[in-house]
Parts: sequence; structure tokens; C-alpha cells
Amino acid sequence: MKLFSSPTSPFVRKVWVTAHELGLSDRITALPSAAHPVNRDSTVVTHNPLGKVPTLLLDDGTMLADSRVICEYLNDLADADLFPRERQARWRALVDQALGDGLLDAALLARYERTARPAELAWQGWVDSQTDKIASTLATIEARAKVFDGRVDIGTITLGCALGYLDLRFAELDWRQGHPATAAWLATFEARPSMQATHPR
Amino acid sequence: MKLFSSPTSPFVRKVWVTAHELGLSDRITALPSAAHPVNRDSTVVTHNPLGKVPTLLLDDGTMLADSRVICEYLNDLADADLFPRERQARWRALVDQALGDGLLDAALLARYERTARPAELAWQGWVDSQTDKIASTLATIEARAKVFDGRVDIGTITLGCALGYLDLRFAELDWRQGHPATAAWLATFEARPSMQATHPR
Repeated sequence: MKLFSSPTSPFVRKVWVTAHELGLSDRITALPSAAHPVNRDSTVVTHNPLGKVPTLLLDDGTMLADSRVICEYLNDLADADLFPRERQARWRALVDQALGDGLLDAALLARYERTARPAELAWQGWVDSQTDKIASTLATIEARAKVFDGRVDIGTITLGCALGYLDLRFAELDWRQGHPATAAWLATFEARPSMQATHPR
Repeated sequence: MKLFSSPTSPFVRKVWVTAHELGLSDRITALPSAAHPVNRDSTVVTHNPLGKVPTLLLDDGTMLADSRVICEYLNDLADADLFPRERQARWRALVDQALGDGLLDAALLARYERTARPAELAWQGWVDSQTDKIASTLATIEARAKVFDGRVDIGTITLGCALGYLDLRFAELDWRQGHPATAAWLATFEARPSMQATHPR
């Protein structure tokens, strides 16, 4: 399998963390990409018209995207339970994945406003709205954090990657302030080999 | 069950089409929302910190989001096969869902640039980039359209809602031009009662 990849994309990191947890990372070759919100990478577009990473190519040429689909495919390949079969655990994990993905969508839009858009066309109201989504979602994560302990599933993997992205790109938010349960959980979760091997240093 | 809803959201439409296909629409009460990319609806935010629709509330208060999670939940509730169990069909449906959702993400970002952002801060480069994603994705859909016939699954439902959204908001794209196989497929698919009942007229 080949994965169009990027060292700092949090959605790519979800796939690599999942692959490491499943013992599949050695079966995936990373392909570099220059995926960017405005300047599209034509090599990626050839396979995935959205031009986004992560994009997985199976050995028979089948294209799988996006991160949710790729992670579920890898989980199935390993006959594992990162997408839990038991219903209550499954919906909990999938909702946590949606919260983490949604937080990342907001964070990326806020970042594009600062880094991809010409400065004279930046709109503070847009950045404020995305930052408000991040704050609300962090509050919800904090309220749920007490049930994260010991859970390794697509929900906690996504939340770990989302919080790691805030550390990488939004250090000034100082998100640990006011979210002690989440901070304590992440300190433990980030020690996992899968998170260490994929840290965007 | 209660669904925070909006009459023109294509992601909300995915849920209603799914519910109609499964015979579950009578069990869901629509709750109005004023979800907006910048001005957030505090009633929705109380339940879903991302403040987005669709957001489903189960009778026990459990919150499910986003559209992918809600649709999979409904499919499971009905013990149905809109998320196919057979592997090849499943990945095909999930990739088609991802293409449709990605097309919609691009379309919504292009629309927000025109309708939500102050006109003097609009950036044509951003609109062009999103429009290019729509065009590439339409080309891929056209190439896949020959295998859509007879398929009713979360992939074709999403693509139907995505194309319907282009008709609603991007009539000037005239997407049927150059995509005859897709246009022919949609004409048949849109005749389904589930699509008729949810048409954003």
C-alpha cells in the first residue's frame, strides 16, 4: 500500500497512528505530497480529485480516502477493534472522531486564514468563529475526558492527533489551561509508541 | 429522536434521505436551527460544540454527529445495508461518500466566500481553488457513474445530495454539461421517493 502523506497533516497522522497500533505501518510506503489548500498537488489529484492527504493506494490501484475511510479499512484488514463492534462503544468512538475531525477542520481554516490567504484579505470574524468552535469543542472534550482512560480506538486516536495539532500550530492558545483532565489524559496517551513514532517534530 | 435540521443543508438532506430509505423518517422530529458558518446557533452548540447540523439527539440524550455517524447509526438501527457489509461494496460506498462530502465541503467554502464574508475581503484565488476541486470531482464521478445504476447506498445517497446542492446553489456551473452519464444517473436517482421528499425547493 502507498499513502500520500505529509509530515505535519493531523489527518495523515491519524492514519499512521492507526497503522502503528495495528502493526501495519511496515506495509505502507509513504509518498510525499505538496497538498495545499489553494495550490493543488497534481500527482495527488490524479488519484483523488479532491487533492487531499491522506490518500491511500492499494496494490490493485484502488484509491481510498479520506482519513476515516482509510483508518476503517486498515482496522478491517487487521480484524481489529479500533472501530469497536459493540454498539455503545462504536457510537462513542465515532462521535469522538467527529469531534476531533471537526476541531481540526476549524483549526485548519483558522490557519489558512493566516498563512494561505493574502494578509489584506484576512477576516478576523472568520478566525474568531473558528477559534470559538475550538474552545467549545475543548470544553466538551474536557467533560468527556474522564471516560478516555484506557480507551484506544479511532475516537481517542483522533482526539490525540487533534490536540497534538493544537500544540504544533496553536501554542498560543495554551489549551491545557482550563482543561486539566484532557491534559492529563493526553500526557499518558502521547507516551504510546504509535504517538511517539508519528510526532510532528 | 430529534434532528437539528436546516431545509437547505445538503448534509442534513443526507440524513433525511437515509431515514426515508430505511422507513425511519417518522421516528425523527426535526428541530429548527440557525446554523451558520460564522454566527453560531447556541441551542445547537449546547449539544454539539461544533454548532453544526445535522446533529441527532437520541431519546436518552446521547448526541450523534456528524452526517456520516448519524447515517451509519440509522442504518444499524434498521439492520439495513446502506453501509454495505460486503467488503468491496463497503469501501466503494464509503469512498463515494467521501467524494460527495468533499465536493460539498468545497462548494460550501466557495459559497461562504460569496455570502458570509464581507465582499471587500473576498479572495478569488480561494473560490477558484474550490471550484477546481468541484470540477475534478465531477470528472471522477462521471468516470464512476457507469457503476452507479441500481446502487442505493450511502455513497450514491451522498452523491445525489451533492449534485442536488450544485443545482440549488451553483446553477451557473451547469454541471450536466460534459457529464452526461452522471446527469442520466441523477435523473433516475432523483425520482426516488426519498429524494423527492427531501428536495430543497
